[in-house]
Amino acid sequence: MEMESATQQKESGIFASAWGWLRVFPCSLKAKVTNITKSIKKLGQDDPRRVTHSLKVGLALTLVSLLYYARPLYDSFGVSGMWAVLTVVVVFEFTVGATLSKGLNRGFATLIAGALGVGAQHTAILCGDKGEPIVLGILVFILASTFTRFFPRMKARYDYGILIFILTFSMVAVSGYRVDELLVLAHQRLSTILVGGAACTVISIFVCPVWAGEDLHKLIASNLENLACYLEGFGDEYFQVNKSEEGGDVTKKDKSFLQKYKSVLNSKTQEDNLANFARWEPGHGKFRLRHPWQQYLKIGAFARQCAYQIEALNGCIDSRIQVPQEIQSKIQESCENISSESSKALKALASSIKKMTDPSPANSHIEASKKAVKDLENALKEASLNTLDFQAIVPAATVASTLIEIVKCIEKISGSVTDLSNLAHFKEVEHNVSPEGKASHLLHRGSVNPVLDGDSNHVVIKIDEETVDSPETEKNQNLKAPNPGKRVPV
Amino acid sequence: MEMESATQQKESGIFASAWGWLRVFPCSLKAKVTNITKSIKKLGQDDPRRVTHSLKVGLALTLVSLLYYARPLYDSFGVSGMWAVLTVVVVFEFTVGATLSKGLNRGFATLIAGALGVGAQHTAILCGDKGEPIVLGILVFILASTFTRFFPRMKARYDYGILIFILTFSMVAVSGYRVDELLVLAHQRLSTILVGGAACTVISIFVCPVWAGEDLHKLIASNLENLACYLEGFGDEYFQVNKSEEGGDVTKKDKSFLQKYKSVLNSKTQEDNLANFARWEPGHGKFRLRHPWQQYLKIGAFARQCAYQIEALNGCIDSRIQVPQEIQSKIQESCENISSESSKALKALASSIKKMTDPSPANSHIEASKKAVKDLENALKEASLNTLDFQAIVPAATVASTLIEIVKCIEKISGSVTDLSNLAHFKEVEHNVSPEGKASHLLHRGSVNPVLDGDSNHVVIKIDEETVDSPETEKNQNLKAPNPGKRVPV
Repeated sequence: MEMESATQQKESGIFASAWGWLRVFPCSLKAKVTNITKSIKKLGQDDPRRVTHSLKVGLALTLVSLLYYARPLYDSFGVSGMWAVLTVVVVFEFTVGATLSKGLNRGFATLIAGALGVGAQHTAILCGDKGEPIVLGILVFILASTFTRFFPRMKARYDYGILIFILTFSMVAVSGYRVDELLVLAHQRLSTILVGGAACTVISIFVCPVWAGEDLHKLIASNLENLACYLEGFGDEYFQVNKSEEGGDVTKKDKSFLQKYKSVLNSKTQEDNLANFARWEPGHGKFRLRHPWQQYLKIGAFARQCAYQIEALNGCIDSRIQVPQEIQSKIQESCENISSESSKALKALASSIKKMTDPSPANSHIEASKKAVKDLENALKEASLNTLDFQAIVPAATVASTLIEIVKCIEKISGSVTDLSNLAHFKEVEHNVSPEGKASHLLHRGSVNPVLDGDSNHVVIKIDEETVDSPETEKNQNLKAPNPGKRVPV
Repeated sequence: MEMESATQQKESGIFASAWGWLRVFPCSLKAKVTNITKSIKKLGQDDPRRVTHSLKVGLALTLVSLLYYARPLYDSFGVSGMWAVLTVVVVFEFTVGATLSKGLNRGFATLIAGALGVGAQHTAILCGDKGEPIVLGILVFILASTFTRFFPRMKARYDYGILIFILTFSMVAVSGYRVDELLVLAHQRLSTILVGGAACTVISIFVCPVWAGEDLHKLIASNLENLACYLEGFGDEYFQVNKSEEGGDVTKKDKSFLQKYKSVLNSKTQEDNLANFARWEPGHGKFRLRHPWQQYLKIGAFARQCAYQIEALNGCIDSRIQVPQEIQSKIQESCENISSESSKALKALASSIKKMTDPSPANSHIEASKKAVKDLENALKEASLNTLDFQAIVPAATVASTLIEIVKCIEKISGSVTDLSNLAHFKEVEHNVSPEGKASHLLHRGSVNPVLDGDSNHVVIKIDEETVDSPETEKNQNLKAPNPGKRVPV
């Protein structure tokens, strides 16, 4: 009896939930569709280049399909036209560098492997009817099991080429055993791959090109700006947290600028990929063919180190132990000076990278921040003379020494940017350009929204174009340019 | 005259350098070959699974080539056998998860896109001879330019599937326009892909399988051990640096253990990839089908946070400002306690993950490290009463507060490991197992050698098998297991 009622209850429960599900189904479907539409729209808005890219792929595919549709082309290429379609789908990547890298890898690997495959075929034929498949099998086995793909350097640059090499060799060596018109087939395949590759290359270079090198350039500059963004806000944030805790209910402001540096922490893979693709790109815009892309990785590494220190500094904001008012007021000025001067130095470096001008304007800020470090040390010393509550000083000391480390990092960044400017022949700044107060424009001018989940081939970068020349140049003492009368033709 | 002699000089210079180059060529060639041989050998020694993988790929390719060589198989599959070869080369990846992910993506995408392509073909035929290519072109364009590949989640899981979908749809829709036996071709292609995919799957699962899930599991445990490794050595290192500077010429020891944590800083991409592949794997060894792989990523994120703090701590060793002897001796004990107890806690957590046992043994160490933090705070207070040289205390205070942050991080790690143990139903430890002194074995037992340059699909992990049960369980007060009489059947 009990069991029966339990079963009934269970059944009615199932029906009820099924009915409930059916009733809400139209609503939930509508909500889902709305959600998807929204996120597609957002993807497009975040980076309009994605939409362009999709259209470019569609264009290339449609063009290549002509090999099939147009009778004269079909007559000369035959079914191999399929390979052109395949090439376009596989080779067309987001950036020009990635597309070229894949296309060239594919082309050369097919050529070499095809030739070797034909050679292997002819060798195998010498071994007689029975021996041929055995010899071919052994050759394919040896080739497939050479594990060149595990060499880190080979893998980074030629992974796709090696894949296609093994693929083509196996296919030619194996299919040659049956297909007699091997050379005709190889010729057709190669020429259709060339057509496909050429379509990709031409469209990716000439229709709204997305350059990996330019992305890397902007990414590194944006990373520095993100760090600067944190440091600029840090002084206010740190000392205001104290005030608000004393004062009571201060409303929480938008603190997104304090989170921007976090994107720098995990940017290594992205930078490596972009640098890797950039090597394949021809000269474009401000970049020559052999632009020192590797140097960007060095700057990126130092920037990451600085981000680690900022992460530690951020822990100081979060940690509940706070500095009492008396000590606070003593160190506040020098702390704020350090962080604002560091921030300005980073911004000057970022701006120097962006505009490819001499990075020396940053030096004055670095000097100023070093001076502020000394002031801070003195202030702490003074503070310690007046207080015996040591525990109150621990957090202040931590902030101080972290800031000192950050200044050291920024010096390293500055050094590597100077190296870059020498390697890439950045132009020297000529001064007396647009003074006072435009520094604030620098801050929120660029932003990088890294795409989540291992999507490491591209990055969303929005940078406004109305870049102004760094206004700090006027105050700068370490200038190199001898002629302070002209405006810079940036 | 001058110019002539300059030209002559230049020419003779060219000849000399060419001759020099020719003379050293055999030597440099030999050196290069030796280098390459060495690095191949090292690659194989670092991870013997790479060698196995290469042999497995060779085996799969040779097996699939049989479709061509064996007359009866060739008669039924025809030239489509080529697709099987292509599938093996493209789909066979290092880990089972990656292979399954690619294989399933390829299979399903081909099936669905093939069906849709045939449908599109039939629709297009209705539009007449002139309309057909236009309709097909438009369809291909629409499909290729939908930018689903940019959705981060879609991209992570189904990127390859979407690629193959677009590819197959374009090929079927386009080639259907010419080839009349479309269905026969589709059938052949699908079945050969199935044969290729099945060969890959079977060989990758049953011949020396490399499981992405297991790699992730070991990677996370090894990361924790690397952090532990640093913290264990930190106390000695920090206070010895002081001594050696005073004492003079102490020879530099092997400090590689102080560098191990650096691999944790950039492990995110690797962890994400492994977790992504692990989802595709069937239950294996100790892992069920729906093992909570995402939870490992959370542990990994906290471990990375801890690594950032350790990076800051490492800056304290490097920075030249050192703590004077009097303060040093006062804080030494508690600092060493914190770092050694934190290290033990991390090791206990790593061991708990590795053996999938209850992580509560770590709690006692966390408690001990928290107690040491209080001792340190008191010691600093006391030190500050006796000294007025505040600058001398700043580095000590920094080390102290960084250590405090590290203890906090370890608490978070412990919390997430506990979550994992609940989600994955780790077994509870029953105590009274192998006491005293085996903790030291834990330290150098596992090591992870991350492969450089974006080779993010796999990781070299060496872990000795003679894992011993954590000896700290005896001292532990937070035990859950009620029956302390039996040995654990690990």
